[in-house]
Amino acid sequence: MLSQQDLLQLFKETRADSERICSFLETEDYVVQPVENVSPPKWHLGHTTWFFEEFVLKKYSPGHELYDKNTAYVFNSYYESVGEKVIRTNRGNLSRPTVAWIYEFRKYVTTKMIDLLTRNKLDQEPLKVVEIGCHHEKQHQELLYTDIKYILGNNPLSPKYNDEFKENRIQDFEREWITVEEGVYEIGHKSDDFCYDNELGLHKKYLCGFSISNKLVTNGEFLEFIEAGGYKDVLLWHAEAWDWIQQNEINKPAYWHKVNNSWKQYTLNGLQDLNPDAPVTHISYYEAFAFAQWKGMRLPTEEEWEIAQEKFEWGSRWEWTESAYSPYPNYKKPEGALGEYNGKFMVNQKVLRGASVATSRHHSRSTYRNFFHPQLRWQFTGFRLVK
Amino acid sequence: MLSQQDLLQLFKETRADSERICSFLETEDYVVQPVENVSPPKWHLGHTTWFFEEFVLKKYSPGHELYDKNTAYVFNSYYESVGEKVIRTNRGNLSRPTVAWIYEFRKYVTTKMIDLLTRNKLDQEPLKVVEIGCHHEKQHQELLYTDIKYILGNNPLSPKYNDEFKENRIQDFEREWITVEEGVYEIGHKSDDFCYDNELGLHKKYLCGFSISNKLVTNGEFLEFIEAGGYKDVLLWHAEAWDWIQQNEINKPAYWHKVNNSWKQYTLNGLQDLNPDAPVTHISYYEAFAFAQWKGMRLPTEEEWEIAQEKFEWGSRWEWTESAYSPYPNYKKPEGALGEYNGKFMVNQKVLRGASVATSRHHSRSTYRNFFHPQLRWQFTGFRLVK
Amino acid sequence: MLSQQDLLQLFKETRADSERICSFLETEDYVVQPVENVSPPKWHLGHTTWFFEEFVLKKYSPGHELYDKNTAYVFNSYYESVGEKVIRTNRGNLSRPTVAWIYEFRKYVTTKMIDLLTRNKLDQEPLKVVEIGCHHEKQHQELLYTDIKYILGNNPLSPKYNDEFKENRIQDFEREWITVEEGVYEIGHKSDDFCYDNELGLHKKYLCGFSISNKLVTNGEFLEFIEAGGYKDVLLWHAEAWDWIQQNEINKPAYWHKVNNSWKQYTLNGLQDLNPDAPVTHISYYEAFAFAQWKGMRLPTEEEWEIAQEKFEWGSRWEWTESAYSPYPNYKKPEGALGEYNGKFMVNQKVLRGASVATSRHHSRSTYRNFFHPQLRWQFTGFRLVK
Amino acid sequence: MLSQQDLLQLFKETRADSERICSFLETEDYVVQPVENVSPPKWHLGHTTWFFEEFVLKKYSPGHELYDKNTAYVFNSYYESVGEKVIRTNRGNLSRPTVAWIYEFRKYVTTKMIDLLTRNKLDQEPLKVVEIGCHHEKQHQELLYTDIKYILGNNPLSPKYNDEFKENRIQDFEREWITVEEGVYEIGHKSDDFCYDNELGLHKKYLCGFSISNKLVTNGEFLEFIEAGGYKDVLLWHAEAWDWIQQNEINKPAYWHKVNNSWKQYTLNGLQDLNPDAPVTHISYYEAFAFAQWKGMRLPTEEEWEIAQEKFEWGSRWEWTESAYSPYPNYKKPEGALGEYNGKFMVNQKVLRGASVATSRHHSRSTYRNFFHPQLRWQFTGFRLVK
Repeated sequence: MLSQQDLLQLFKETRADSERICSFLETEDYVVQPVENVSPPKWHLGHTTWFFEEFVLKKYSPGHELYDKNTAYVFNSYYESVGEKVIRTNRGNLSRPTVAWIYEFRKYVTTKMIDLLTRNKLDQEPLKVVEIGCHHEKQHQELLYTDIKYILGNNPLSPKYNDEFKENRIQDFEREWITVEEGVYEIGHKSDDFCYDNELGLHKKYLCGFSISNKLVTNGEFLEFIEAGGYKDVLLWHAEAWDWIQQNEINKPAYWHKVNNSWKQYTLNGLQDLNPDAPVTHISYYEAFAFAQWKGMRLPTEEEWEIAQEKFEWGSRWEWTESAYSPYPNYKKPEGALGEYNGKFMVNQKVLRGASVATSRHHSRSTYRNFFHPQLRWQFTGFRLVK
Repeated sequence: MLSQQDLLQLFKETRADSERICSFLETEDYVVQPVENVSPPKWHLGHTTWFFEEFVLKKYSPGHELYDKNTAYVFNSYYESVGEKVIRTNRGNLSRPTVAWIYEFRKYVTTKMIDLLTRNKLDQEPLKVVEIGCHHEKQHQELLYTDIKYILGNNPLSPKYNDEFKENRIQDFEREWITVEEGVYEIGHKSDDFCYDNELGLHKKYLCGFSISNKLVTNGEFLEFIEAGGYKDVLLWHAEAWDWIQQNEINKPAYWHKVNNSWKQYTLNGLQDLNPDAPVTHISYYEAFAFAQWKGMRLPTEEEWEIAQEKFEWGSRWEWTESAYSPYPNYKKPEGALGEYNGKFMVNQKVLRGASVATSRHHSRSTYRNFFHPQLRWQFTGFRLVK
Repeated sequence: MLSQQDLLQLFKETRADSERICSFLETEDYVVQPVENVSPPKWHLGHTTWFFEEFVLKKYSPGHELYDKNTAYVFNSYYESVGEKVIRTNRGNLSRPTVAWIYEFRKYVTTKMIDLLTRNKLDQEPLKVVEIGCHHEKQHQELLYTDIKYILGNNPLSPKYNDEFKENRIQDFEREWITVEEGVYEIGHKSDDFCYDNELGLHKKYLCGFSISNKLVTNGEFLEFIEAGGYKDVLLWHAEAWDWIQQNEINKPAYWHKVNNSWKQYTLNGLQDLNPDAPVTHISYYEAFAFAQWKGMRLPTEEEWEIAQEKFEWGSRWEWTESAYSPYPNYKKPEGALGEYNGKFMVNQKVLRGASVATSRHHSRSTYRNFFHPQLRWQFTGFRLVK
Repeated sequence: MLSQQDLLQLFKETRADSERICSFLETEDYVVQPVENVSPPKWHLGHTTWFFEEFVLKKYSPGHELYDKNTAYVFNSYYESVGEKVIRTNRGNLSRPTVAWIYEFRKYVTTKMIDLLTRNKLDQEPLKVVEIGCHHEKQHQELLYTDIKYILGNNPLSPKYNDEFKENRIQDFEREWITVEEGVYEIGHKSDDFCYDNELGLHKKYLCGFSISNKLVTNGEFLEFIEAGGYKDVLLWHAEAWDWIQQNEINKPAYWHKVNNSWKQYTLNGLQDLNPDAPVTHISYYEAFAFAQWKGMRLPTEEEWEIAQEKFEWGSRWEWTESAYSPYPNYKKPEGALGEYNGKFMVNQKVLRGASVATSRHHSRSTYRNFFHPQLRWQFTGFRLVK
């Protein structure tokens, strides 16, 4: 657990980071929601602020005056009903509150939080909530990047976000197969550092021996799969995957475009030539699985990944695993409102391990369990093979 | 047909009006599209400008340089494919081009148009297209009001548009039944003034005798219908209407809210007490029809309305008629791109006659044929009864 | 109005006809419902029988014992809720009651009806309901043919219904254009013979002069339209029609198949070569309209058709008109349960005039107003042109 | 592996069983398909027969003459396209081939198979396919029971199947908690007896210690959950489960009806009083999970179930586990067409262990891995708790 002083530092840095990420946007970019799982940037900025006001200031800062009791509820995750007036709506339809209002709201809450963390010596309980709040906002920072990419990358004008953000880290080293011996291993979060509830419940796992690649699959390798007809061979795909690629006419990773017979990739720096040496990204679990079938190999389980990860580089792509997202053997759902955080998603999702180019500082660790539905592609996903 | 000088005046006034309507908006309000038939205000501003550049300047202003050939296409009504790069999208997902960009685009095109109309003596053909362009923009001005109302009125914060716009004109006169004798009447546009293709084809119509109310149905009368269980009596409704009210849980006009047991109505001035004397609005054809059934009366046909209209006040509500939208007996679809304008909508729609509080100056006339699907309610619709 | 004796004859003939139509079916053919607007033949047989028991025997035959009070309700048109046990279902899911049960039910009700019509001298009121019941069953006979065609014609084995039913009557006469003079005409049902409520309200109509073809459009002519790219020219189509043909990949009339490069048509006699001289059928209003646009002509209104029909042959195809289905000027909705019969469908439908090869004996007349949604094709529809 | 003689016996018994199950049906019951995952009984009878003709007779019986080359393809699982004539359809729309045809087809194929198995000494390869074919047909026998229950139980007349089939075996013994010690266990199929590919790959699994109930959860216990508001407490449910119960208005197990304030259950013997001591059935994984949450317990993993199962009675309900359906560590997808059998379903499904009252003789074993989507309820599902 961090000291109050360190936590204050983490809080300040986290709040500033969210605003820095959005500093490259036009006002209009904050507003739209092109698909359901992408949220408007202004909602991310408001929601992460509401979290601190709702769970910290309201509870632990006596006499705290709400910034605006009539408005903040729109930043709850579920805000369908308010008092007697019920309006069904969704995030992408809301032009109000404005972006300027949200920045004022942020400033107000940030200031009050700094006051709280500076003036008083707080108990462990509030400190813990502040820490969760910071990590919660860091999760939303990753979503900010990927949602912004979706918003700009699906605009027919292909506007760029900025020139600095680097999506594609080249792996300039040789392929090697890292061997792990059969045996009983320990899985789960061990240290006192922050982690989510779903990483807890340290437990033993029996692993058969396996070999895992030190490199992620690249754009060039994935292009071979496309050119070999991988998207057309029903035997490589799960039954649900096959329906999905037919219905959505999927035949390449997201953000790939064939323009005048040459392959382009939309990145946060704009539309660029596809780099065959960069790790492939924006692929679904289904596509990662089909590629592995085609190679006669498979994806790692999350436990295999966790045990092997010390021996390879990771951190530029969230890596799909074969593991369905389930509770660890000793999983205990936390009490109270924060208890909803992870457990309720433990069905029909696949675990991803690692971190990505969009992951915030201090927000990646080897036991982190990310999870998405198997068809989703808007994150910086990737994969490595096991044989 | 207007003189070139008058047309220049009409053009200037029209362009200014669109911008004045939007002057009360925040940037965010220009962007969202909460339902399919509501367009973002920025799209209206861009589309009406694109119209003048595409159909006037490109054709009749030699050497005209396009403001931005890579961007303007998004303001075409159908812009799904562009060259080899195809991106499916819709208007409410587009954060770019920005509002500022669109105002620059407007300024450029407006200036070029004024130059053209000032410096040269133009032929009838371009003048005619300019006139259509002005009326086209006036139609979009009406849509701007109703789309803005939808955007703000479906926001849970119920923000107001401004304090000036008056939606509800009280009819402070007694109900009278205006009688029209059986006989042959002439229907359609007669003068040389501007009208749309669908009003042309002056023709004779045999009308049976009828009596029509000099007053629109009011909120108070409609409330009686609600309280008498009108929304629950299947015998009052068309079969398709019944399905529609069940599936959408329709039990009151749009923008009505029951708050703490008293009826409120969202207006462009914000949420207000329902005025029982104001003409009811934001009702579908289905609801107008069911109300008439309940009263043992009926809606007028469009020809009955056209013949009787001289004897009553109209202009605050678009009035539903019983008439399906069909071509007049001598209808000729215009040649070329503008030929698509009206004919292709002549199925499954009902005619509305009159004009509304949102109709632009110089844009209402007794022969005007508006049309919408029978379930739509976002316009300032209303109705009067015939017996 | 028919005498009781003649009505008895009509009743017997009608009941026998329904069973004769079904005599060519296998038990399995009675059960399925491939699309929503096609009902299983066993439902038609049960529903027409339920009508006589519910509206005649229950009311006018004192002491009538219901055949089975627990079962017959499934033959009501709307049977979603029964007592406290509510089961949502639809007609094509119901394997029970069995076909054998339904024939027993028919026999019981037919016998009781014959008793009633034979033994007593009935008042006008019950006689009128019996007459409506017979015409109601005749309507279902037409639907039996077209629903059976749908069921068999959409089976990949293309089974035939029988060898006798003749769908395609060749028009072996020359094309002529019949001229009707401008003037006031009388529209609506005049005689004392049976008609539906929607034909009543004799009224005057002013018609402009027009010329109408004495021949229906043929398969050969429609093939020219296809080969000229008619299905690909957006300018020929209503906006809603264009969406419909895109979404449903419509590019030919229903039941047409191109097999080994030659055109076949599924008929009730099985799959056959397309006869270019037969009148085209199973086309939607949208397709009829687009064809007329392509020819530079139009469809007749229902009044034009009614006035001109004495001068041409009709009766093998229901003919699409340009008229939307609306009440006649003096239309009065009948009182009571039978009042729902026609009025509630008077929106979003187009009128068809004439009759078809599937129309029952004594069930066609020049004032008959049939109506369907503009995209429907499973009836024996056709059309003729006006210029 | 069975001897050829034993296999012949298994084959005969299996073929006879399918027909005995259907002997209680009316012809109409064979035809309908009320929901997508329920197949018409006639399809099951045809499909299992097609399997033997396609994979055994065609390959291993030289000179075999197909019963009907134009028809049998409709019993392939995927029969959308045939030669050049493509008709989209689904199983429940097909009235042909008839039930009588299918029984003739069965007789022909059964006779030819018996000839083959009687006259020749066959190799291991064909014998293996025959064995799979028998087990394949046994799987369809279970589906026959549950599909028939769906067809009859969703008919508003609640017809019974027969009087003999016993759904509800009472567990007349006390609740006990069986303890399993922490340690490494062996998982997977061991013997030479028949099993599916997904059970192979014997491997070690580390289990933490746990206690599992010797009894299935009963109707009475589940009723307590309902009465305690279990279906209304969002905290008990997965996020996707909550959406599912809202959208489908789920508030009780399938086939339960509250009639005149008392609970009834539709069974294959007709509608009966709910027996509180019978094990609950026709519940989804979501409901089993929510019940366990409510009790503060959990469902077993499939490995826990497999290790503990020797110590409790099972076989009347398929039992939901917490395990997602994934490949075993050493899973190898079989070569060829039969390789599609299991692997392609290994995503988004939960494993069920045990067997049910509908499971065929010789078709249950402790390593059998059944799997369904978490919302499905038409099987005889149940569950037991772990703490």
